[in-house]
Amino acid sequence: MKKILNRPVDYVDEMLDGLCAAHPDIYAQPSPRVITRAGGATAGKVGLVTGGGSGHLPVFTGYVGRGLLDATAIGDVFASPSAEQMAEAMRRADGGAGVLRLYGNYGGDVMNFDMAGEMLEMEDIASTTVVLADDVASAAPEERAKRRGVAGMIYAFKIAGARAEERASLDEVTTTAQKAADACRSIGMALSPCIVPQAGRPTFELGEDEMEMGMGIHGEPGIWRDKTKPADAITDEMMDRLLADTPLGRDDRVSILVNSLGATPLEELYIMFRRAKARLDDLGVAITMPLVGRYATSMEMTGATMTICRLDGELERLLRAPANCAYWTVT
Amino acid sequence: MKKILNRPVDYVDEMLDGLCAAHPDIYAQPSPRVITRAGGATAGKVGLVTGGGSGHLPVFTGYVGRGLLDATAIGDVFASPSAEQMAEAMRRADGGAGVLRLYGNYGGDVMNFDMAGEMLEMEDIASTTVVLADDVASAAPEERAKRRGVAGMIYAFKIAGARAEERASLDEVTTTAQKAADACRSIGMALSPCIVPQAGRPTFELGEDEMEMGMGIHGEPGIWRDKTKPADAITDEMMDRLLADTPLGRDDRVSILVNSLGATPLEELYIMFRRAKARLDDLGVAITMPLVGRYATSMEMTGATMTICRLDGELERLLRAPANCAYWTVT
Repeated sequence: MKKILNRPVDYVDEMLDGLCAAHPDIYAQPSPRVITRAGGATAGKVGLVTGGGSGHLPVFTGYVGRGLLDATAIGDVFASPSAEQMAEAMRRADGGAGVLRLYGNYGGDVMNFDMAGEMLEMEDIASTTVVLADDVASAAPEERAKRRGVAGMIYAFKIAGARAEERASLDEVTTTAQKAADACRSIGMALSPCIVPQAGRPTFELGEDEMEMGMGIHGEPGIWRDKTKPADAITDEMMDRLLADTPLGRDDRVSILVNSLGATPLEELYIMFRRAKARLDDLGVAITMPLVGRYATSMEMTGATMTICRLDGELERLLRAPANCAYWTVT
Repeated sequence: MKKILNRPVDYVDEMLDGLCAAHPDIYAQPSPRVITRAGGATAGKVGLVTGGGSGHLPVFTGYVGRGLLDATAIGDVFASPSAEQMAEAMRRADGGAGVLRLYGNYGGDVMNFDMAGEMLEMEDIASTTVVLADDVASAAPEERAKRRGVAGMIYAFKIAGARAEERASLDEVTTTAQKAADACRSIGMALSPCIVPQAGRPTFELGEDEMEMGMGIHGEPGIWRDKTKPADAITDEMMDRLLADTPLGRDDRVSILVNSLGATPLEELYIMFRRAKARLDDLGVAITMPLVGRYATSMEMTGATMTICRLDGELERLLRAPANCAYWTVT
């Protein structure tokens, strides 16, 4: 197992301890596996909460910060946090204006966040939900509600976070967050799996010359598995699948995210970005604020995801608004 | 080969094209494989130039930006750029106040940068050199001049960059850069190699349960190779070796960099940071502005480096000064 760790059972807690120790001006851990902004909730601001399994840094914990999220609940690697953790994150995020739950569409997370919402209702804390489901490979357009949430989630975190900083109401922040969620389409591809520390073995197997298209960030099966292709062919297919789901043309404005799942280096992401940009240039689509890097990972998985976020004036303004966490600074 | 690329021969140029296309407000490529700030040289400011092989992003190209470097010359993967490229980078960086060459201690880079300096002398552009040699595993303390430059180089880029922004003279910037270089000690360890695209095979072999301590960022042999150890034992040995080379005690202030060589995820870096911080806490050493992430990589190599940068008042002020590139924003 090519990992630097102590006892697998301590992986998540040691990681969170290190994260908070490295960035004490940004993150705090007021109760186990609940991470908040260092200063806690902001009075009068809608609180934004997410949560999910570990192993995806900077998702989810990383995006707590100014102009972003207020709190997260963190589970074991690739496992949902408990409803009680989620309720605690929501309590910690509440500044008196209500709390938006904004998280990826996975069964355990949905069930536990629903329960957490019910707990908070009994405590007279208003809350709403936007479920993020950007992965076009995980269900057909007619069944969008079944899709998984992947790297495109970060656009919703950023845009909803900026709207909340403007002191918009819970309804307004929820409406904007849903618009951001609806604006995003993602697809992933993998060249190699990752290893869950407590399992100690790869989440799937891929031959030395094989790739998989459409794979999820936990190793969920994709659309096809075959010999690897050149970067431009891979990028073209990813763009084709995204554009089939969200047709774009002249005068459209988008941000795109070329995201490494972990091991794939920046060099390769830029080779993919170059091709994706050429495709959008051909369509007359303008790219604003492109993101290239590691924004949502599966530990050391080799592969990449591509996200298109279609912007209107409001979404672009909020995407460009100031923000600060350990991984994403907008000035 | 678990890589997303087109023809290996196009790897570097496609990567640089993508980098400049993604960040046109930061980077420009006025001549092949010479990257400058988007706005070119700054009149009256000392120009800072580095260079080296590709495959280390964000090093070297990435650290061109405000408060950082002015230009870089980029070679093939793990190969030195030519003297002519280096001379061109220096010309592009010159704002009339002279140019500092600031680069890692590798034979080809030293030879070519010396030649480039001679070329510039004939063109009446003054230049100085600071060679970065922070890797304690690569030579004994008595032979510090033989050491390799690794991740600690980025402290010299940042600190010298901030000093140049203050409009210090070439001599003053050179003195500060040398002080920053002298303040840094690094050591690396690897769990798996990377693959140079044009070679198509790993740079070295390591068994599934093996690690190597003291390895260089191109796969240069380290101090020992043996069974993998727990994260705390690995971190302790790295800290012991760094502290043996630069003893620290109460009232000392340092920045530390826990850097992934590529595939090693943030989660594991935070597990290491947590231990490194505990060691420094025990000594009464204060950590300011710790860095945890991918700052100097070897593409998809698995492993990490640890750097200690011992700060005095000047170095800390300059480390904290504003800077902006695609990978490092200080506000």
